[in-house]
This record gives sequence, structure tokens and C-alpha cells, in this order.
Amino acid sequence: MRIPILKLHKYLLISIQTEIDDQTAIQFQEDLLAKIHKTGATGVVIDLTSVDIIDSFIAKVLGDVVSMSDLMGARVVLTGIQPAVAMTLIDLGIHLQNVPTALDLEQGLVKLHQELGG
Amino acid sequence: MRIPILKLHKYLLISIQTEIDDQTAIQFQEDLLAKIHKTGATGVVIDLTSVDIIDSFIAKVLGDVVSMSDLMGARVVLTGIQPAVAMTLIDLGIHLQNVPTALDLEQGLVKLHQELGG
Repeated sequence: MRIPILKLHKYLLISIQTEIDDQTAIQFQEDLLAKIHKTGATGVVIDLTSVDIIDSFIAKVLGDVVSMSDLMGARVVLTGIQPAVAMTLIDLGIHLQNVPTALDLEQGLVKLHQELGG
Repeated sequence: MRIPILKLHKYLLISIQTEIDDQTAIQFQEDLLAKIHKTGATGVVIDLTSVDIIDSFIAKVLGDVVSMSDLMGARVVLTGIQPAVAMTLIDLGIHLQNVPTALDLEQGLVKLHQELGG
């Protein structure tokens, strides 16, 4: 199954669930970049509230997708990162520097609005 | 995989993808009702833009979930219903009367706001 990407005004909203496999992650990466291209979205919120644990492959894909989206002109905000996920990301050397984060979807949208000078 | 349910302020947002099987649909029904209960959401937007075809079981679950959410006090708006899906729903006798519909997520949120007297 593909990860749904919701478009709300100029933003794309995604909620990632725990049980994603490598294939789904790669598909998500492709889908998100295609959707940014198609919609001209300027911002993306990826919500990780439901993600309890993260493995190295998914973490890598996540880091990549943030950089790729940035290259395409869409700012990414990560929301709802849980303690175990934060620890895994840092342990794996994925620092996601310059990536804005927020507590939840609402805060993420506010942050995106600020980042984009709205 | 579970269908992600995003919470945005008092509303829940869901985007359904084509390839959902019966088990996923049932799980979604349970998840949505649990989330309405937990968050006290007053409105739900279910976006069907990515759904090309719908079978009788999924259509039935969809009709049920609208009625159940209503019973729990959350108004449901369906968005992005494609022609083939509309035809299937009516053919199956699922008229979804009194269920507000809209073109896309943005319009759905506006409709929800109107419905709830906002």
C-alpha cells in the first residue's frame, strides 16, 4: 500500500505509520517528489507521531527525502518525532540539520508558515 | 498497513488509496471511531481522490463509517469522489443521503466549517 499524501492549499501533509517496509519507503519517496512537482507545493509536513521505532534504511530514506524536497523548492517540517526515533536518527549519524521540527501537525503548519515567511 | 488518520485542529483528515483490502477497511473503521472518541473531533474529511474503483464491501464499510461517525457526533464530508465510484455507490444502493460532499480537501474543510455552523 502507498502512503497517502494529502494536499492542503500549498502544503502536502503526510502521516507515516510504524509498519512501513523498504519498498513502501522508496515508493513514498518517489510519490512525494512527483507530487511536489505536480502541485508546486512549497511546504511539506511529515508527521511521525505513529512511528515508535525506525530502522537504518527508513531513516536514510527520510533524510534523503528531506534533502530532495528542499532541492525541489519545498520546505519540509518533521513533526511528532518520538524519543526512540530521535535516538536512532542521531545514532545513525542522520542529524537532519536545518530541518525544522515541531510537536504535532498544527505546530508543524505554523512552523512552515514562519519558515516560508508567511 | 493501516490508513493514516491526521488530526488537524478539531478535524480528522483521511486520504483513502485505491488498493485497500477488506481487512484494511475494517481496521480503518475501528481506528477512525477510536480516534474520534479519543480526540473529540467534530468533523472528518475522507478524501477519495485516489480511489478509481470501489467494490461492494468497501462501499458498505464507507457508508457504515459515515453513519457511525455521525452517531458519535462527528460530521463526515466525502471529497474527491470520481465518476466510477459515484456510479458504483448508487448502483449498490448506497446513497449516502445527507452526507456532504466536496471536490477536494480544501473545499471539504470549508464545507465542514459551514456544516458545523462555524
